[in-house]
Amino acid sequence: MDEQEFVVTPWEVRGKVDYEKLIRDFGTNPITEDLLERIRKHTHELHPFLRRGAFFSHRDFDWILDKYEVGEKFFLYTGRGPSGHTHLGHLIPWIFTKYLQDKFDAELYFQMTDDEKFLHDPELNLNETTKYAYENALDVIACGFDPKKTFIFLDTEYMKTLYKIAAQFAKHVTFSTVKAAFGFDASTNIGLIFFPSIQAAPCFFPSILKGKNVPCLIPAAIDQSVYWRVARDVAPKLGLYKPAEIHSKFFPSLMRGGKMSASEPETAIFTIDSPKVAKRKIGNAFTGGQPTIKEQREKGGNPDICPIYFYEYFLFDWDDKSLAKTYRSCRDGCLLCGEHKQTLAKSVKSFLTEHQKKREKARDKMENFILRD
Amino acid sequence: MDEQEFVVTPWEVRGKVDYEKLIRDFGTNPITEDLLERIRKHTHELHPFLRRGAFFSHRDFDWILDKYEVGEKFFLYTGRGPSGHTHLGHLIPWIFTKYLQDKFDAELYFQMTDDEKFLHDPELNLNETTKYAYENALDVIACGFDPKKTFIFLDTEYMKTLYKIAAQFAKHVTFSTVKAAFGFDASTNIGLIFFPSIQAAPCFFPSILKGKNVPCLIPAAIDQSVYWRVARDVAPKLGLYKPAEIHSKFFPSLMRGGKMSASEPETAIFTIDSPKVAKRKIGNAFTGGQPTIKEQREKGGNPDICPIYFYEYFLFDWDDKSLAKTYRSCRDGCLLCGEHKQTLAKSVKSFLTEHQKKREKARDKMENFILRD
Repeated sequence: MDEQEFVVTPWEVRGKVDYEKLIRDFGTNPITEDLLERIRKHTHELHPFLRRGAFFSHRDFDWILDKYEVGEKFFLYTGRGPSGHTHLGHLIPWIFTKYLQDKFDAELYFQMTDDEKFLHDPELNLNETTKYAYENALDVIACGFDPKKTFIFLDTEYMKTLYKIAAQFAKHVTFSTVKAAFGFDASTNIGLIFFPSIQAAPCFFPSILKGKNVPCLIPAAIDQSVYWRVARDVAPKLGLYKPAEIHSKFFPSLMRGGKMSASEPETAIFTIDSPKVAKRKIGNAFTGGQPTIKEQREKGGNPDICPIYFYEYFLFDWDDKSLAKTYRSCRDGCLLCGEHKQTLAKSVKSFLTEHQKKREKARDKMENFILRD
Repeated sequence: MDEQEFVVTPWEVRGKVDYEKLIRDFGTNPITEDLLERIRKHTHELHPFLRRGAFFSHRDFDWILDKYEVGEKFFLYTGRGPSGHTHLGHLIPWIFTKYLQDKFDAELYFQMTDDEKFLHDPELNLNETTKYAYENALDVIACGFDPKKTFIFLDTEYMKTLYKIAAQFAKHVTFSTVKAAFGFDASTNIGLIFFPSIQAAPCFFPSILKGKNVPCLIPAAIDQSVYWRVARDVAPKLGLYKPAEIHSKFFPSLMRGGKMSASEPETAIFTIDSPKVAKRKIGNAFTGGQPTIKEQREKGGNPDICPIYFYEYFLFDWDDKSLAKTYRSCRDGCLLCGEHKQTLAKSVKSFLTEHQKKREKARDKMENFILRD
């Protein structure tokens, strides 16, 4: 693969992602300064993910604000494909979703696609994906969502409600459409072919259950955007609002290139990793540094390609001044990779310790969140 | 279409059906005298549908008896696509299924595919197919099934259970397979593409729910056979028994050619028709008679193409001697079509009166039969 090439699909992210190109390719809109100002009017402060462009693209977020401003509250919809344990990258959209829930007093529907991960992965059985869904739900709850306004559901457990809406959606979607949108072919299994209907259904079910159109905002990594594109095409045929979207970048792998992957444990820090394991993974990580200390002192490092820096940028240093200082120290050759890794390991340790406490407490809260038919 | 051509798919039966050719084309087995004798050993009497060949073809019915004879009881599975009201043709497999339930003390799972009829017919919405499912269920119950051993479910209401099994099935079925089996193409909607999994699921769920393989026998009209062919291919991959099948012929239209169709009301007598309406439809029916009474007396009629005769054959004259006499009287020109229609109208009147009483009583029994998640 050419250095310039990259692949972004719901099942694969590979290569160095050019986010501006993604905006053009997917036909989404960049988050402009004007839009940020408009958001700030409601939220009073901008989340670091917005300030720093971790959320960088959208569809109809401005329309969501139009509706909000005339008193039509939106609900949030996001989810997780439970193919393994949660890693820190998964938390990015969830942390942001929690911010949106707080600032806009919004209900959240959180879908666990245990069916899709089973249908996609030859190695996984349904019991495993269902088990992971409950493991992942602990992490969702640990993010601090409001139990009164947050509804987590597993596809396999909530199918009675989902299927009726999915079937109405599916009636308007042909094999041609999913072939073009998802790259399905004659060898794709018929469960996966139908699945886009299941992922589309939650965009609409608050509207259908409440008997009136309710705007939907989906915060998610941009690889999921193709699902919502199909959902948006069908919505008017059902007399329903198109879902709006706000897209995050990918959390980087600890190794060179690509995103964190639950299937490659050393590329990611999992929420259940002990601080010791996390420290080891950080110690082994790729960096933007030079081969020797001497060269690092002379030439400086490159934070723009460095996972250690990205961890700070995304999760562990939300103070813009402090982050800028780190960036310069690296560039100037003052900050050595080993030192930076130690700093990050400390932050990760304190984050994991705190998160794991909340995660344990989440076990008792589970039933307040789970939606069943 | 050539006189010799005919079409049999789950969605269309057209032309004069050659049942021997169907056996060859579908790769099923004829019901032989030996098999009939073996059935008689258990049932002591042969149902007229077996004696007369209304059920004429099977897959693995002999294996079902092998299992039964060593103490492995089978369950029955059949169903209905609720696109309209029940007509007399629909009752054929149900009446036979009731006979099998009685004779073999078998549980029956009865599927109402309200999803499929919605997905297939551009004119129907889900509320309508669900409404028809309950209307049709009244007719099923009126057939006299044992409420302790009969489980009727609607796909949209029992999807939580069905979907988990359907997903496991779907993982082994590609678009290629359903394209070849059902004639799906790129313009088929993704709900219909997935649907064969939903129709396959009940073949397996008693086995899955009980945690041990339970033989399944499906009595159904032969147009459904393609579903079971796919189900049989996948079963071993799931470690499950292949479902066995026994196939009925199609109940004829009151008009020339084809089968009764719920979408063409004048071709069929519905269970909710008043005797007066039924009499009118019979009066207007096509027959195998001659254009004039004079010719009829001279040349005789042709019962082999006559819906009036087929009504007697299937449902209203189960006495073989009496039926043979009718056949000869028609052939000899003794029996005029008008007379025969009057006789049939009387039988239909007494059948409908009785059935409609049972159908009304079924309303109070519904909840004893319906299975919900």
